[in-house]
Amino acid sequence: MKKLGMVGGIGWQSTIDYYKAICRLSLVHHSAGAGGRPPPMPEMTIESLDIGKSYGLRGGSNRNDVSWVRYDQYFRSALQRIEDSGADVAIIASNTPHNRYSYITAGIRIPVLSIFDAVARHCARLDIAEMLVLGTAPTMDGPEFADVLARQGIVAHAPASRAARESIVALISELYAGRGEAAAARIRRVVDESVPRGAATRVVCLACGELPLAFPQIEGETDMVLDGIRYLNTTMIHAQAAFDALLDDGDAAAPPLLQDRHRIHALD
Amino acid sequence: MKKLGMVGGIGWQSTIDYYKAICRLSLVHHSAGAGGRPPPMPEMTIESLDIGKSYGLRGGSNRNDVSWVRYDQYFRSALQRIEDSGADVAIIASNTPHNRYSYITAGIRIPVLSIFDAVARHCARLDIAEMLVLGTAPTMDGPEFADVLARQGIVAHAPASRAARESIVALISELYAGRGEAAAARIRRVVDESVPRGAATRVVCLACGELPLAFPQIEGETDMVLDGIRYLNTTMIHAQAAFDALLDDGDAAAPPLLQDRHRIHALD
Repeated sequence: MKKLGMVGGIGWQSTIDYYKAICRLSLVHHSAGAGGRPPPMPEMTIESLDIGKSYGLRGGSNRNDVSWVRYDQYFRSALQRIEDSGADVAIIASNTPHNRYSYITAGIRIPVLSIFDAVARHCARLDIAEMLVLGTAPTMDGPEFADVLARQGIVAHAPASRAARESIVALISELYAGRGEAAAARIRRVVDESVPRGAATRVVCLACGELPLAFPQIEGETDMVLDGIRYLNTTMIHAQAAFDALLDDGDAAAPPLLQDRHRIHALD
Repeated sequence: MKKLGMVGGIGWQSTIDYYKAICRLSLVHHSAGAGGRPPPMPEMTIESLDIGKSYGLRGGSNRNDVSWVRYDQYFRSALQRIEDSGADVAIIASNTPHNRYSYITAGIRIPVLSIFDAVARHCARLDIAEMLVLGTAPTMDGPEFADVLARQGIVAHAPASRAARESIVALISELYAGRGEAAAARIRRVVDESVPRGAATRVVCLACGELPLAFPQIEGETDMVLDGIRYLNTTMIHAQAAFDALLDDGDAAAPPLLQDRHRIHALD
């Protein structure tokens, strides 16, 4: 298997979700079980950043603004250290920095798998035509995710009102701090306000690593259907794409069956 | 705060326990809560190794044997990459490699905080005079941990019989693979066989990152008393020592109170 580099800590809970997912996928892939010598596990370098610092380095609403330079550099230097550590493939274990993807990855020689790309391809496979995107302000309001989705023919919507957008941003902070009372119900209210009830399919993209904390059932799953709404867990979609990229040609000859992937829960 | 380097993956579950503990301790230290900008979090480089490879590189029972050279080098090269990434302090997030501590850390310029030292100092503070050590074969049978404990006046016992030792080693493999049925009861049988019931204090050191998985109640705790037996969680003792070492002089002026540390559970 190839070595993975991961920029983590933005935030720490989703770094754990990524790491756990990749380890479990590897155990299933190598058919853990017989005991004795532990099966192979991909080597990883994780550069866990200071979320307080990264938050403070965010620039203004103009994406070309010079104010973003130090933010971009903070993430790029982590990718450079990951490159120096010998990683073959890298990911940034967070949605928000992907709004600066082209700036952050400038000059990085190893592939940096984009979460927006992974989600867009996942949606295309599921024939999703449009969805509501919930995340931090840069993810909901910026053009980057919408553009990547549009290239796959998928229409992205932000929450309908400014109040709804702000309630999601506040909820993310609360979930990060271990609070977020009635989080699932609060998300549901935003969905009901923003997606017509008569819509044939109601798809909600949880495009922020903290939002899946609102739904314990979605842990370890890429998708979940609850009360007629399909929720996408971008963390798991990205982690699965990363694991697939670590498989060498020999490994890839025997990819895990989809149903095997569900076995990962038995390994916790 | 200083930057932490961590050699992880041996095994992955305890790497998560370490990472989670350090992030929670940082949230409590910085009094997370008010919302808004996230509080500072220590930067970390985690080099997560392939446990299958490390297992295969283990040498023979003679600790001076040349057969250990590649094992030592596998861990030392991870510490070198951590050093290159700019970490100020490092830990190896696992008990077993500490049986090769002096070989692995040879030539490393940053401090590598030993789990055996951290546990010995923790025991001395608690006035523990003797205890049963449960872990992998190198930890139970080797002289390293016993020597470090002896320097603090603490006597270490291994399980009383060969069968008991083997049952612990088998249980560790099962817990790693997500099994380990009736794990707590199996540990208890080894304790009853190995520690006299009349002993004034019965202390059991869970000196392997997988063994705390047998006791959900011990997650996030350094110690737990259950049915008159005190269990020590070496992962948490080591993680707490690591976090304390990350505090700068300014930070250290206001160390978190012990009772505050218990608040970390509210943050999950």
